[in-house]
Amino acid sequence: MRLRNVEGARDKILENPEHITDIDFNETVNLAEKFTRKQPLHLEIGCGKGRFAHTMARANPEINVLAVEQFDSVIVRALEKQLSTPMNNLHLVRMDAQRIEAMIPKNSLDAIYLNFSDPWPKVRHEKRRLTNHFYLNQYQRMLKPGGRIEFKTDNRQFFEYSLQSFNAFGMRIDDLTLNLHADHYPENIMTEFEMKFKDDGPIYKTIVRFEEANQ
Amino acid sequence: MRLRNVEGARDKILENPEHITDIDFNETVNLAEKFTRKQPLHLEIGCGKGRFAHTMARANPEINVLAVEQFDSVIVRALEKQLSTPMNNLHLVRMDAQRIEAMIPKNSLDAIYLNFSDPWPKVRHEKRRLTNHFYLNQYQRMLKPGGRIEFKTDNRQFFEYSLQSFNAFGMRIDDLTLNLHADHYPENIMTEFEMKFKDDGPIYKTIVRFEEANQ
Repeated sequence: MRLRNVEGARDKILENPEHITDIDFNETVNLAEKFTRKQPLHLEIGCGKGRFAHTMARANPEINVLAVEQFDSVIVRALEKQLSTPMNNLHLVRMDAQRIEAMIPKNSLDAIYLNFSDPWPKVRHEKRRLTNHFYLNQYQRMLKPGGRIEFKTDNRQFFEYSLQSFNAFGMRIDDLTLNLHADHYPENIMTEFEMKFKDDGPIYKTIVRFEEANQ
Repeated sequence: MRLRNVEGARDKILENPEHITDIDFNETVNLAEKFTRKQPLHLEIGCGKGRFAHTMARANPEINVLAVEQFDSVIVRALEKQLSTPMNNLHLVRMDAQRIEAMIPKNSLDAIYLNFSDPWPKVRHEKRRLTNHFYLNQYQRMLKPGGRIEFKTDNRQFFEYSLQSFNAFGMRIDDLTLNLHADHYPENIMTEFEMKFKDDGPIYKTIVRFEEANQ
């Protein structure tokens, strides 16, 4: 994705630490402590402009939602939504997901959402894909036993890769659809990307868990 | 599938026991003994009119191919192909697949092919689907350790169901494509059905194995 520069985005992020945490390369922050209420914690990695995370948080006041995104110019839109209708069960994080595990206590997440993550189609970029074994190892440690990963994408090859990656890691499939919008999923929360492209081809989705024995 | 009655099919099948074995409800036959040469044994369940099995056997003289189909009026077409160009590494079997395990020695198969099997979409017919756990148990016992199942279908829901069934059984995915004909699979052998319908929508395919530990 080519990103437009959004003027003033960086300043706006740094001026609103109660809504968004900006994590630099060397910092370590406990993101679970960013909420006033102690309740189930869900994490979206790559929240983009925040539609999914906002809708999720608004519809589920009994969960805390952490929404991570690396690009200032994108997450600033999620911040603007939060500034106009603040929710104390949503917290934004501007950081590269690579070090996410250092920011989240072990066994603390109930769910992780990967929505239309960058597919990194080139073989030499496999290490950047959010569903590779490097990341699955991190997710397993952050998730509670029985916690789930919900993954959706419109990229066929990325979905094929991810199913094989989950399977090779010994994960179990709780749900699977090869055409989310043709099936009956009334609970589906669409991302900005999904609203725009849902008619261009199938959206693939799966929910997977780590085997209890591996925990 | 509604089947046309093919006049004389039954007689033709019974008259050619060297090419086709007709197995009645109560019979037990060792199908592995139907070949002159001892070499790797591959099984297609639901061979229809036999294009896949014939092509496979012709292209691979170093393997023996068993092709099973329950309907006289369909398998008689496979028999006619065999009568016009006989191959001693292909043997046809007219039977209901339900009791297939009784006809194949344990640990004797290298591969099982399920091509466009009946999806049995109704929930109450799940027990008839060739990828349910009843059948997977049979396949596991018939296959050698490391032996594979190659499964392809154009039915999305059946593929979704099957991936989940394989996964819940602890099987490993060796290969997976959600659009066989868009990808580069020069070794793909098309069935009659596939030739007719390949342009109507994606063909899904996976190759799976039982975990060595389960053998």
